Amino acid sequence: MKVKGRPTRTIWQASDGGAVEIIDQTKLPHVWEVARLVSLADAARAIKAMLVRGAPLIGATAGYGMWLAMREDSSDQGLSTAYETLYATRPTAVNLRWALDAARARLSLLPPSERPSAALRLAEEICEEDVAINRGIGTSGLPVIEALAAAKAKGEPVNILTHCNAGWLATVDWGTATAPIYMAHDAGIPVHVWVDETRPRNQGASLTAWELGNHGVLHTVIVDNAGGHYMQHGQVDMVITGTDRTTASGDVCNKIGTYLKALAAKDNGVPFYVGLPSPTIDWTIEDGVRDVPIEERSADEVKRMTGRLDDGSIASVLITPEDSPAANPAFDVTPARLITGLITERGIAEPSTEGLLALFPERRAA
Amino acid sequence: MKVKGRPTRTIWQASDGGAVEIIDQTKLPHVWEVARLVSLADAARAIKAMLVRGAPLIGATAGYGMWLAMREDSSDQGLSTAYETLYATRPTAVNLRWALDAARARLSLLPPSERPSAALRLAEEICEEDVAINRGIGTSGLPVIEALAAAKAKGEPVNILTHCNAGWLATVDWGTATAPIYMAHDAGIPVHVWVDETRPRNQGASLTAWELGNHGVLHTVIVDNAGGHYMQHGQVDMVITGTDRTTASGDVCNKIGTYLKALAAKDNGVPFYVGLPSPTIDWTIEDGVRDVPIEERSADEVKRMTGRLDDGSIASVLITPEDSPAANPAFDVTPARLITGLITERGIAEPSTEGLLALFPERRAA
Repeated sequence: MKVKGRPTRTIWQASDGGAVEIIDQTKLPHVWEVARLVSLADAARAIKAMLVRGAPLIGATAGYGMWLAMREDSSDQGLSTAYETLYATRPTAVNLRWALDAARARLSLLPPSERPSAALRLAEEICEEDVAINRGIGTSGLPVIEALAAAKAKGEPVNILTHCNAGWLATVDWGTATAPIYMAHDAGIPVHVWVDETRPRNQGASLTAWELGNHGVLHTVIVDNAGGHYMQHGQVDMVITGTDRTTASGDVCNKIGTYLKALAAKDNGVPFYVGLPSPTIDWTIEDGVRDVPIEERSADEVKRMTGRLDDGSIASVLITPEDSPAANPAFDVTPARLITGLITERGIAEPSTEGLLALFPERRAA
Repeated sequence: MKVKGRPTRTIWQASDGGAVEIIDQTKLPHVWEVARLVSLADAARAIKAMLVRGAPLIGATAGYGMWLAMREDSSDQGLSTAYETLYATRPTAVNLRWALDAARARLSLLPPSERPSAALRLAEEICEEDVAINRGIGTSGLPVIEALAAAKAKGEPVNILTHCNAGWLATVDWGTATAPIYMAHDAGIPVHVWVDETRPRNQGASLTAWELGNHGVLHTVIVDNAGGHYMQHGQVDMVITGTDRTTASGDVCNKIGTYLKALAAKDNGVPFYVGLPSPTIDWTIEDGVRDVPIEERSADEVKRMTGRLDDGSIASVLITPEDSPAANPAFDVTPARLITGLITERGIAEPSTEGLLALFPERRAA
């Protein structure tokens, strides 16, 4: 997607070929800064300190990290060290594990001298596959927005609410929830996005608003409390969110608060869609509320808020009484019954076991 | 309620008799500071700059402001100036208007020499009436909490979720939503309160958490996104909120985001109550979603967040891209169908026209 008018991805090989470059997302939305990674240590730090975040982008960064590592030491010992070092950065990130396993499996079969170039190719494949999946989600979802636009007066925008950042910043390009939005915008369909700020980490207010603004998509930031009100008043035509993990029956585990928006959508007859890259389907579980463990994060994310002071520096302020406890569940589960459709790279699935299997018939055998 | 162990109200006549004292609520939760009001100008500033907030407390402050004004100039001209000055501070506040109208009606009949003492008596009456109403809400709601406690294992707390600050800080004492909670706590029933932070102004994180903590009530601050998740997992036994305006049919207009919690409560079979002082019932309207105009407040409340820096100073940080627009509806409407009961000073009303009229039969004639 575009930044200052130029097509940009979240990760790429530097033009001199000697490094990987990423956007330092910890500085967004206030500062646009590209970080250069030249070593395994750089890549590990970028993931751990969340310069990159979002499951697909973490996977891609791990892929490039293996390349940087193989340039330093392509021995079996080097391969093992690289795997362990990168894995330790965010041990619960599924795409990270997946990318590292793929790299180790492929590289260990090769002589050390061939490992650097093979690792680079694999990293590029991971990126292209992610872009292809997201583009597929965009293609699948575009007709939904087209249909909503067709029912509007000419020039009146389709109002789409989204939660958190399932945008291109969380992936390599396009994003999952945002792919249909960008595709509609690029096709000349007027869209306007209600951006939930998404407390406690504010990924909506900081990242989604930033990327939509840079690509030229009309948007308005709102607090997480406001979406229901806009739905009651006919000001939301559809909701689309991402998903961290989707059960075989179509329950969606996504950023905390997604469930509340799905309830409001249901109550007001607003269609609720999920941009779903098929690798995030967990075919081994059925009941999301019962079976998906919810990560509990630091109370400080709730008690404090980070932003830009008037002098331009970044600071964190305490917003609760010093000694009040806080709890911070990171995700919640939206039951399939509240979801209109799961927009995958193969088309839109009805949120049910049968609906998903119809698009992924190869899973029937499993 | 208690502050540092001492029973405290939000407004009182200074012990030397020469002034009114209030809690400077703009400094909470970080600094506890009492402000002394000695003049009409002081009272007007306290309301306008939100040192006091909450409809009942604004009304009480206006009442005391009339007293301070009459001490300065009790002529007809002085009475008129006092009315206009105080009314201009928050022209949409219903209790403010009501208190001022009551004061003008009573004082204008008296000779100027009697006006100061009559104004003081009226201010005290306004305060006592507010305390009586809130105590009545507490008495009406206490049995609900007692029944939930009786169904629990001994010592296990009743988990109550609340949104915004409908606590004693918004009134003269007890609060509306919090009155049953304080009464249960004081009666030795173990209660634990989930405190919604309540973006954008954070009245939950800053005020409700502060007052519960000072009174010794167990509580946990959560982001507004989290309540649905806790309800899905059986960790909320009841919800209780306040109301800014209630329609004759029982629709409740309250702080933005209340509707989302009511939807989640309904979806999970969690009882949803509203602490309702009868003066906030608007008997002239029926359909809340259609007929209650929703105040749109400054985008800066969404784009910025205020809190305490590590050096102890209070600062505001920008949390969105500088040029992203933001929208800020202050209230939403929770339809009566989602509400279990309206806890009034006369008992608990079923949320319907008939339910309200059964408790307020004098309205049938009107």
